[in-house]
Amino acid sequence: MNLILLFESDFVDPGRVRLTGRRLAHVTSVHRAAVGDTLVVGVAGGRIGTGLVLSLDPLELQVTLDRDPPPPLPLTLILALPRPKVLNRVIAGATSLGVKHIHLINAWRVEKSYWSSPRLSPENLELQAVLGLEQARDTILPAITLHRLFRPFIESFTPSGLPLVAHPGTAVECPRSVAGEVTLAIGPEGGFITREIESFERATFTPVSLGPRILRVETAVAALAARLF
Amino acid sequence: MNLILLFESDFVDPGRVRLTGRRLAHVTSVHRAAVGDTLVVGVAGGRIGTGLVLSLDPLELQVTLDRDPPPPLPLTLILALPRPKVLNRVIAGATSLGVKHIHLINAWRVEKSYWSSPRLSPENLELQAVLGLEQARDTILPAITLHRLFRPFIESFTPSGLPLVAHPGTAVECPRSVAGEVTLAIGPEGGFITREIESFERATFTPVSLGPRILRVETAVAALAARLF
Repeated sequence: MNLILLFESDFVDPGRVRLTGRRLAHVTSVHRAAVGDTLVVGVAGGRIGTGLVLSLDPLELQVTLDRDPPPPLPLTLILALPRPKVLNRVIAGATSLGVKHIHLINAWRVEKSYWSSPRLSPENLELQAVLGLEQARDTILPAITLHRLFRPFIESFTPSGLPLVAHPGTAVECPRSVAGEVTLAIGPEGGFITREIESFERATFTPVSLGPRILRVETAVAALAARLF
Repeated sequence: MNLILLFESDFVDPGRVRLTGRRLAHVTSVHRAAVGDTLVVGVAGGRIGTGLVLSLDPLELQVTLDRDPPPPLPLTLILALPRPKVLNRVIAGATSLGVKHIHLINAWRVEKSYWSSPRLSPENLELQAVLGLEQARDTILPAITLHRLFRPFIESFTPSGLPLVAHPGTAVECPRSVAGEVTLAIGPEGGFITREIESFERATFTPVSLGPRILRVETAVAALAARLF
């Protein structure tokens, strides 16, 4: 937790917050905060600054906000729904990189059972995004949208900027240092099937390769984000 | 498992292997292989090709090797020992990216208990590396070295190529698309302390930043690898 993310409900007075739950436990047991310490804080959707510890029980901070969060990554991610075990890491990882738009979509090789995972609850998705923001010292939550049917999604989706679909084995290399926005789709384990790639192509996406290595989705997201911008 | 990694002990005849254990279970239950199917295989330290399923019980493959593994990433990684929970993912992830030299080192902010984790056993480290190779369709295992003392390590280590140490908040940006080898050091959660950064600088390392975001080590490794090459 490199930043303590604050929400409106934390404010007991203007400029003064009371921490509870997970953040209280973390500040107490990991930061081992004492009265007079300052911590890095940020308001969800807003600015970043410092929190001066006023008291420990209850744990209250005097908040001073003096700078903007880091700029967002101009990348919209379309991800075939990963295995539940992987989902949390992917959401937190993409959020830490600054991604603000994540679409989780169905695909032929996505196991149906993944769609009934409790990890898809709005509460869990928000928690994973918050963990990513706390890691990266950001405050702007990503919008995460679920699309349980592939065809209606791809037939109605309008990509922002350059539309790419990662497709291992294709001849075109993923571009580097793109100016402007990119929309990038990444397939499930085993990849998108040919028919799905054709649907992406009809929706103006270009299939691109990252080289001969097939990467796990969380590795691919970080590698592609770093390569694109 | 995008490639089945074979070892010398798997060969029952020249060109014929018998699968056991984890790979047998995977090929049977995930690939659901049938006699006559072909699977992607590679020999540890050697070439890649196909395995034609000859029989299911025992599971034997006729092996034809016809191509080299993908080129290695010219990156030597020095990692402050991560939390045991994270270690497996970092080793598998770095290996999948093609890293062939990994040094796990101590640092002030590495908790002492991490060094007694069973995950540091040679058997587990090799298993995680094998998982990374199977993911990326590679065959060359990385060399993984443990250094339980920071000072003797940094005072005797000779970096290959351009020596960089990731240091969030420093002014110099991490270079892009470097020609030639790079040695890159990444600190623990909370970063290297000033004295450690100074030791790296004496050892000719340049502190570099990846921007205002602090990334988890597994995200940072993938992002830096993609950015550097």
